Amino acid sequence: MREHPARPAPGAVVERYRNPFPTVDVVIELMGRGDPPPIVLIERRNPPRGWALPGGFVDYGETMESAARREAREETGLEVELLALLGVYSDPRRDQRQHNVSAVFVGRAGGSPQAGDDAAGLGLFSAEAPPRPLCFDHELILAHYLAWRRGQRPAAPVQD
Amino acid sequence: MREHPARPAPGAVVERYRNPFPTVDVVIELMGRGDPPPIVLIERRNPPRGWALPGGFVDYGETMESAARREAREETGLEVELLALLGVYSDPRRDQRQHNVSAVFVGRAGGSPQAGDDAAGLGLFSAEAPPRPLCFDHELILAHYLAWRRGQRPAAPVQD
Repeated sequence: MREHPARPAPGAVVERYRNPFPTVDVVIELMGRGDPPPIVLIERRNPPRGWALPGGFVDYGETMESAARREAREETGLEVELLALLGVYSDPRRDQRQHNVSAVFVGRAGGSPQAGDDAAGLGLFSAEAPPRPLCFDHELILAHYLAWRRGQRPAAPVQD
Repeated sequence: MREHPARPAPGAVVERYRNPFPTVDVVIELMGRGDPPPIVLIERRNPPRGWALPGGFVDYGETMESAARREAREETGLEVELLALLGVYSDPRRDQRQHNVSAVFVGRAGGSPQAGDDAAGLGLFSAEAPPRPLCFDHELILAHYLAWRRGQRPAAPVQD
């Protein structure tokens, strides 16, 4: 157990720990476009370039669920209802930039997605046949999503 | 999508974002002590004092699952096999010290737990009748654990 130090004395040496960064990603099922529903991917404008699930960093004071809905809204214009927590992905090598840990949700939305300002593009894809390679570990996440959709993989509830 | 800035020019104003801190907690089922198994709680030596699930901060470069096993080992001496991801708890009010988000696992272990140096004590309890109040949101987490044990609540797989 690493603890928060008591208020340090003036001049005391203070240890600072480095932590991974909490992020969220969302597999968005777009309803009314067929069964199974297509999912929404965004084409990243910033490095690493390529296709990826919508997602981003969690702000201090924000729940993971709020962050997931906010990032989905900012990047796709969609209001997403979160259905399940697919998993937590924390391999230090999953993002080449720094150690980002991601809570990944499955959600669903209706309407017409629009790429946000920081996305170069947006697309609807069959989860079985996404553009490849996807960024980060998002191919692994989609494989887990497909297993969940087939009923072969449990997913935890969202907390709000 | 909040992005990592490119390398800033000398003298440039750099925005720094504040993120919640990733932590882990573990509901440890101690095997060979009855059915249902008792769970292991630790009595915190540091504020907030009281009984709590074993857990702590995730180190940079460490997976959530490794952190969960490490914290369990440091605080209880047990080698824990992780069974499931119960959920991610991120209410900014769940920890009065700062915004800590916790990935909570269920695990099991055998042997005899021993309180680590930073625990004032350690106890085995029925999950239905823990000492109250528990620290943080650990009563809510135990309620979710009991629902999971009864098969009334799904839990996601661990990722390793």
